[in-house]
Amino acid sequence: MPTFERKKHVYRSRDFEEIIKDTIRFFNGTPVLPIPAPERFHGTGVYALYCIAKTGVYRDFHEINRTSYSMPIYVGKAVPAGWRQARRRNSSNSLSYELYGRINEHAKSIELGKGICLPDYSCRFMILEGPESDLIGAVEAALIRSYRPLWNTLIDGFGNHDPGKGRYEQAKSDWDVCHPGRLWVQKCQGVHNTKKSLLQSIVHFMSELRGDE
Amino acid sequence: MPTFERKKHVYRSRDFEEIIKDTIRFFNGTPVLPIPAPERFHGTGVYALYCIAKTGVYRDFHEINRTSYSMPIYVGKAVPAGWRQARRRNSSNSLSYELYGRINEHAKSIELGKGICLPDYSCRFMILEGPESDLIGAVEAALIRSYRPLWNTLIDGFGNHDPGKGRYEQAKSDWDVCHPGRLWVQKCQGVHNTKKSLLQSIVHFMSELRGDE
Repeated sequence: MPTFERKKHVYRSRDFEEIIKDTIRFFNGTPVLPIPAPERFHGTGVYALYCIAKTGVYRDFHEINRTSYSMPIYVGKAVPAGWRQARRRNSSNSLSYELYGRINEHAKSIELGKGICLPDYSCRFMILEGPESDLIGAVEAALIRSYRPLWNTLIDGFGNHDPGKGRYEQAKSDWDVCHPGRLWVQKCQGVHNTKKSLLQSIVHFMSELRGDE
Repeated sequence: MPTFERKKHVYRSRDFEEIIKDTIRFFNGTPVLPIPAPERFHGTGVYALYCIAKTGVYRDFHEINRTSYSMPIYVGKAVPAGWRQARRRNSSNSLSYELYGRINEHAKSIELGKGICLPDYSCRFMILEGPESDLIGAVEAALIRSYRPLWNTLIDGFGNHDPGKGRYEQAKSDWDVCHPGRLWVQKCQGVHNTKKSLLQSIVHFMSELRGDE
């Protein structure tokens, strides 16, 4: 009978924590650009969207982000095709445009969304390719954990895609209730949260962000 | 108009490559245990299954793995709940048994599978918890890339779950065609590959592994 000692199986790495901290520092030092990005570029990686609206329910972001873009409203990732199954090989021959495309898609959602205005939104992004592309999930998770961005947490569904034929029994997401506009969302049939209650929770979130209590 | 310079957004880290190499070395140094694991343990992480069958289509693994367990037949991961959405907080209070459970499930699949025999299979595993749990995807990907394990590549479907009511239009996986036994698989209706052609491709794979050509 083989003996089992849990500690023989536990891997620790202080260096990994340092690398993640370093990626966050690097991320926060990348240039802030409008969305969609001014130029098409290839690569995968992590991005954040920032709001600097002066009016509307998100108006407090203006003060918060105006100088240093310190509080993202959404964080996301674009991973290499086949990443879920970890089956991809590095084929540097075929350039992919996942990260650019993902940010571009978000620009369209915002453009269509009621109550928000595309020029109020900008982005940072960080390209992770080759061996570093295996860091994408960890960097996205670390950013979400440190900032708890509004559209990743309280108001869910911004990053959703058209669920497709035969799957419209689901409800509209919170994001789509707050900012109606995307065409496919109109087909969703499930019982969704009310706009009133969601907007109240946004107001509460923003007042906590400002530091009121 | 903001200027765009791709290189300002690209993150490089030689240290990360070194960490991944170190995790693989650590992994290959963890004790080999039977499946299911001799004791229930908590945690998430990465595991590999090894075959040392003396007979049957996998018999060449006996020679390959008998002394050093150098060629896994399958590599997988067990991630913290909520990992896909990166929304989990570290709640060290609630112990989870994902890794143990996943290996246990695999033991059941092998036990039920025709043409394979549970005592011929064993495992290595590495627990990654806390900040290191963000390494799970990268370590799994690195192991699959270095070993290209048979059940991750050529013969797919070993890790599948019951797709559930209303989704049995899909085909039996290659693994289930080769090793029929799991009950839910019998409900799958789609057109699957033939056992004959799959066994032929296994024979070819094994001869390449032995180094014949």
